[in-house]
Amino acid sequence: MGKLVTKITDRDMDFAAWYTDIIREADLVAYSSVKGSMIIRPYGYAIWENMQNYLDREFKLLGHQNVQMPMFIPESLLNVEKEHVKGFAPEVAWVTQGGDNLLEEKMCVRPTSEVLFCEHFKNIIKSYRDLPLLYNQWCTIVRWEKTTRPFLRSREILWQEGHTMHKTEKEKFAGAIETYTIEAMMYDGVALQNGTSHYFGQGFAKSFGITFLDEKNELQTPYQTSWGCTTRMIGGVIMTHGDNHGLVLPPKIAPIKVRFIPIKESEKINEVIQKISSQLNKEITYDIDHSDKSPGFKFADAEVKGIPIRIEIGERDLENDVVTIVRRDTLEKIQIKIEDVPMKVEELLEQIQTNLYERALKRRDSMIYETDDYEEFKEIAATKPGFILTNWCGNTACEDKVKEETGLKSRCIKEDYEEGLCPFCKEKSKYKIYFGRQY
Amino acid sequence: MGKLVTKITDRDMDFAAWYTDIIREADLVAYSSVKGSMIIRPYGYAIWENMQNYLDREFKLLGHQNVQMPMFIPESLLNVEKEHVKGFAPEVAWVTQGGDNLLEEKMCVRPTSEVLFCEHFKNIIKSYRDLPLLYNQWCTIVRWEKTTRPFLRSREILWQEGHTMHKTEKEKFAGAIETYTIEAMMYDGVALQNGTSHYFGQGFAKSFGITFLDEKNELQTPYQTSWGCTTRMIGGVIMTHGDNHGLVLPPKIAPIKVRFIPIKESEKINEVIQKISSQLNKEITYDIDHSDKSPGFKFADAEVKGIPIRIEIGERDLENDVVTIVRRDTLEKIQIKIEDVPMKVEELLEQIQTNLYERALKRRDSMIYETDDYEEFKEIAATKPGFILTNWCGNTACEDKVKEETGLKSRCIKEDYEEGLCPFCKEKSKYKIYFGRQY
Repeated sequence: MGKLVTKITDRDMDFAAWYTDIIREADLVAYSSVKGSMIIRPYGYAIWENMQNYLDREFKLLGHQNVQMPMFIPESLLNVEKEHVKGFAPEVAWVTQGGDNLLEEKMCVRPTSEVLFCEHFKNIIKSYRDLPLLYNQWCTIVRWEKTTRPFLRSREILWQEGHTMHKTEKEKFAGAIETYTIEAMMYDGVALQNGTSHYFGQGFAKSFGITFLDEKNELQTPYQTSWGCTTRMIGGVIMTHGDNHGLVLPPKIAPIKVRFIPIKESEKINEVIQKISSQLNKEITYDIDHSDKSPGFKFADAEVKGIPIRIEIGERDLENDVVTIVRRDTLEKIQIKIEDVPMKVEELLEQIQTNLYERALKRRDSMIYETDDYEEFKEIAATKPGFILTNWCGNTACEDKVKEETGLKSRCIKEDYEEGLCPFCKEKSKYKIYFGRQY
Repeated sequence: MGKLVTKITDRDMDFAAWYTDIIREADLVAYSSVKGSMIIRPYGYAIWENMQNYLDREFKLLGHQNVQMPMFIPESLLNVEKEHVKGFAPEVAWVTQGGDNLLEEKMCVRPTSEVLFCEHFKNIIKSYRDLPLLYNQWCTIVRWEKTTRPFLRSREILWQEGHTMHKTEKEKFAGAIETYTIEAMMYDGVALQNGTSHYFGQGFAKSFGITFLDEKNELQTPYQTSWGCTTRMIGGVIMTHGDNHGLVLPPKIAPIKVRFIPIKESEKINEVIQKISSQLNKEITYDIDHSDKSPGFKFADAEVKGIPIRIEIGERDLENDVVTIVRRDTLEKIQIKIEDVPMKVEELLEQIQTNLYERALKRRDSMIYETDDYEEFKEIAATKPGFILTNWCGNTACEDKVKEETGLKSRCIKEDYEEGLCPFCKEKSKYKIYFGRQY
C-alpha cells in the first residue's frame, strides 16, 4: 500500500516508537535547537485550533470571559502562597537579565497563573455583585522538564487556564480542597492525565487578602477554582485512536475531513471532484491530492494523516457513475453513486465520530479490572495492561506500598463508593480508587 | 450625563491623560506588580479577539498556515544573523536559570522569530514544490522597553508574525531589501506605527544555508518576507476614533454592538427587549444593562465603552410603540417604531462603520501638508500637528538635519514620485517622503 506505511513501527510491538513515528510521518511536530520545546507544524496546529475553538465556544456559553495576564511572575509574587511556590519553584525558567542589565528581582516565566489572577482579583473584586467571576486565559506556560516527549511532556505547553471566584451561598462545592482529574487510558493501558480542575477553597484568597462585601454589607472571603487542559490532548488522541496505518482523527477535530484522490489527473475526474465538493456541507473541510505521487502513496498519506474519509476517483469508476469511499476508522471501502456522495459523507462522518468513541470506551472498560484481593491485584498488575479498581483505606502508606511492590500508582478516586476492606492493610476502606501506570 | 464622563480629560487639552482615562474607564487594561506588562481585561481582550478572527480568516484565505514555534531562542541561534542580533540583543529578556540550575547557554524570550523560522525552513524546504511556504504565528513576544504605555509600548506584546519563503520566477519583489510600514495618524496628528512588513531578499536564507532544487534540479536560494501587527492596533483605534465621552469602536471590532438600556426595570420593557433582540441578525452581539445604576450612568457607561448603538427603552416610549436609538459616533438620537428596530440597527451599524472610516480619513488628509520650501516646512512643523510631505534626496544627512532642527522624523516613503529638488540640501530629489512625530 505504498512507502509511508512501512515506516511506522507496529503499535503492539513498540508503542513508544509507534508514537514517535506517527508524530513524524503525519507532520505534526518538528524539532529545533531549542531543547525540550517542539515546533507544532501546520497540521498539528490545526488540530489544536479545532480543539481550542470548540472549548472556547463552550467556555463562553458557560459565561467565561477571556483575559490575558503577564507571562512573567516576580519571585516575591510567586512566594505569596507557600504551598504553591514549593510545588513550582523547582521547575520554572528564571529571567534574570533584561537587555544588558541584571534585574533587581528575578522573574519566572509563568508555570501557571494563580498568583497573577489572585493579585488582579484583589484589585477588582469589591462586592457580591462582582461574583461569580469567571475568567479564562489561552497562553503558553513553561515548566523546566528534564525529559520531554512531543505533546506529552514539554518545556513549553500551550494551554488554557480557567480561574473563577465564587460566593458561598449560591455556588456550593464539596467542603474539601480537591483536585479533579481526567485520567484517559491510552491504547496500551497506560494513563494520560488530560486535564485537571482544582477547588482551592479560600486558601489563595486568604493569602492574597481577597474579600468582598456581601448583601448584608459584611466582609467575606470568596471561594476559588482553577482548571485547564493542554496540547497534551493531541497526544491523547494519537494514543487512543491511532493504528498501524497512522493517525486516526475523530471528524470533529480533523483539519481535513475529506480528501479527494484522483487516480490520475484528468479533466473528467476533476469535474466530478468539483461537482461533489461544491455540494458538500460548508463545514466539511476537504482537500484534493494533486501531487505527482502514485495512487498507493496517496492512499497511505491520507491514512497516516488520519483523514476521516478519502474519496478515490478513477476513470473506470466514472464509467459506472460511482466513486470509492474509504473510511479511516475501519478502512472499509464502499462504492457509491456520485449523486449520493454528499449525503453519504455527512452520514459517515457522524458514524466515524461515534464509532471511534465507542471503540475506545469499550477497550478502556475491557482493561479495567476490579478486585479487593491483593494477590490477584499483583497478578493483574504484573500481567495485564490497564487500570485496577479497588477499595482503599485512604492512607498514603498503602499507596506507597502498592507503588513499591507493583509499580502502579493511584490515578483517581471513583465518585461512588460502597463499604468494604482495603486489600492492602485490611482496615475499613473509605474509597474506591483506580491504580495504573502513567505517562 | 452622569458621573463617568466627567472623569475623562478633554482630548484637546491633554491627549495623553485622555488616553489613560479611556483605557481605565472602558475597562480595557489593568496593572499588576509585573512592571512594564499589562493585564488585558475581558473587554479589551474581546476587541483583540475580533481583530484576530478577522485577520486570521483573511490570512487563511490567502493560503497562510498557522504554526507554533518555541518561545525561547538560544544565544548562538540569535547570533547567526549579525544585523538581526545587533538590532534585538539590547532589548531582550534572558533566561539564565531552569529550576535550580544555571543554563549552559542562556536563551532569550523571542523578540521576533525570524531565526527560529529560518532554522525550521532549512530543514523542511527541499524543492521548488515546497515553495511558496506561507506561515503565520500568533504568540506573545518580549522586548525589554524602559518606558511603557498600555497597547502602545509594552514589554510583552501579543502579535502575529508572518514568515514566507518564495521562488524567484513567479513571485516578484522589488529588488531592494525594504521595510513597508503602516504609519497611522492619530487624532493629535502624531504617527503610530501599526504594522510592518519586511522583504529580506536572500539575506537570512544565505546566513542559514536555506536552499531548494528548482525545476532544472539546480540549487537555488529562496527569497523571504516577514510581516506582523500587534495589540498596538487597539491603541490606534482608541486614538483615531475616541472622543471626550470615551472609546468609539468601529462596529466590526466592537465586542458588544448593541446595548439595551431599560429606563426602569419592568416586565413590559423586558418583553420588548426580548422581542427586538430575538429578531436581530445573529452576528449582532448585544447585551442588556440590568444594573441598579441611574439611566444617566448607564448612558455614560455605554458611551465610555464605545458601544456603537444603544437602545433606550422607557415606559412612556412604549405607549407610542417607539424606542430611542443613540448612535455612538455622532451621539444622534432617533425615535423609531419597535417593529423597525432590527432593520434600522443593521443599517446604522454599516453607516457608523463607514462614517468612522471617512471621518478619520478626512481628518488625516486635512493634516498632511505638502511643501518643498524648508522655511514653510519649519513653520508648519512648529505650529501644526500632522505630517509633512516633501521631496527628499535620499541622504540620511538631510533626515538628521530635519530631526535636529524641527523634531520631525521621516515616517515613510510615498510610492509614487515626481522629479524635484530636496528642500534641505537643494540636490535633485529621489523620493517623496512623509515627516512627522511618532508614538
